Amino acid sequence: MTFAERLSALCQERGSQLCVGLDPILDRLPGAVRGGDDPVFAFNRAIVDATVDLAPVYKPNLAFYEALGLSGWTSLKRTVEYIGDRAIVLGDAKRGDIGSTATAYASALFEAFDFDACTINVYQGHDAAVPFLRYRDKGVFVLCRTSNKSAPELQDADIDGRPLYERVATRAVEWNEAGNVGLVVGATYPAELAAVRALAPGLPILIPGVGAQGGDAAASARAAAGGPFLISSSRAIIFAGDGEDFAAAARRAALAQREEIAAALAPA
Amino acid sequence: MTFAERLSALCQERGSQLCVGLDPILDRLPGAVRGGDDPVFAFNRAIVDATVDLAPVYKPNLAFYEALGLSGWTSLKRTVEYIGDRAIVLGDAKRGDIGSTATAYASALFEAFDFDACTINVYQGHDAAVPFLRYRDKGVFVLCRTSNKSAPELQDADIDGRPLYERVATRAVEWNEAGNVGLVVGATYPAELAAVRALAPGLPILIPGVGAQGGDAAASARAAAGGPFLISSSRAIIFAGDGEDFAAAARRAALAQREEIAAALAPA
Repeated sequence: MTFAERLSALCQERGSQLCVGLDPILDRLPGAVRGGDDPVFAFNRAIVDATVDLAPVYKPNLAFYEALGLSGWTSLKRTVEYIGDRAIVLGDAKRGDIGSTATAYASALFEAFDFDACTINVYQGHDAAVPFLRYRDKGVFVLCRTSNKSAPELQDADIDGRPLYERVATRAVEWNEAGNVGLVVGATYPAELAAVRALAPGLPILIPGVGAQGGDAAASARAAAGGPFLISSSRAIIFAGDGEDFAAAARRAALAQREEIAAALAPA
Repeated sequence: MTFAERLSALCQERGSQLCVGLDPILDRLPGAVRGGDDPVFAFNRAIVDATVDLAPVYKPNLAFYEALGLSGWTSLKRTVEYIGDRAIVLGDAKRGDIGSTATAYASALFEAFDFDACTINVYQGHDAAVPFLRYRDKGVFVLCRTSNKSAPELQDADIDGRPLYERVATRAVEWNEAGNVGLVVGATYPAELAAVRALAPGLPILIPGVGAQGGDAAASARAAAGGPFLISSSRAIIFAGDGEDFAAAARRAALAQREEIAAALAPA
């Protein structure tokens, strides 16, 4: 079973294309988890327990753990282990390097941590992807068209009448020999998302940028619907509530997000 | 004093444009450091002690530490602290993200670790740089034209007759309000290096890719000489010897590299 098949099976089983971003910010953690010796892990565990039947994928962004220093890495490792095989765990690392360095990053993500998938940045071209692609059963999501305001600065650069991000999408399709390549396209640009879907009909597309960043989940789902996709939401779900019932609030937000995607895909 | 001024002063004081890459690989560490409880730190400490009067800058690439799991992060933290203010410590992280995530990465590198400088990837445009640039006394080296074989795939994409990497160089110059921006250009492409130097006359250029990757230090020094630059060498220096005298061997290699750069710059 390829990574793409595994992802599709899990999405189908849960009736969900929802990816929950586990991006803890210490100041925003609810009081209920602050007392213990690993509040970040306690928070993540509660969120996962409350949402795992709704979310085929969890996506910790490594930045938030690195910012906490060594304790952050411990919390991350415990989180990945805790989720185990109950869901796909995607390390949002956006690593981009070459040669032995890229090999070391791939080893960090897929061995030191046992992520099922990760995100990478291929500004350096194919060399930046190869060491990750070698892990044939792991998912490798290539940054293609990001959700932020200055994304067009390089990504829309005009090359013979086509934007740069389309070149990235085309390359990613070529690299997909093992069914383990995906793309990252922000929810804030549905037209670009549709263009990428047309170029990469079979590739899973990870779509961040809904919620706090202003992307439209329904429009994104419709633009990506010709193939497998994941709508990723972080703060809007994990910080939906900050009281004792924060996990229940996260569940309600996850449920609403899942329904919004399903409704967008339902025949009119 | 801006970062660029601090760097230039240190280069002048040491008569050196040498940056030593601290990229430990467990299997290649000499027997002399393997016995202790933190061989990576013991190795780095010995290399630094043997070379610090020759090297204004040390550049640990985070990948090699991440690949070692939690112990790697501890070794890295100890290494950064050990070097302290004896040299500039540049975290080669190539991070590239946006918004709160990029802010978290900047905080990880400049606060959780106290790096003096770092490398970033700006595929996402200006948004990926801003959170780093806010640390006005820290150096921010933007990936521009990398040393690897597939670098041309995106970086040489033709935009109105100019390659993409020139657009990156031009943007970096615009971002340099605080004298804290640099560029990364691989030693394997001296012509591209000269083009970048022409576009960014005042920016420090970090030049990796000599030694194991085949770049020519002398040709690179000449191409970059119109402004501040650093020639970075990792394996050719730190693994110059593997016996009891590995640190002395590293010193000899560093000395030879410094001399090669100086000779290339000497008037004929």
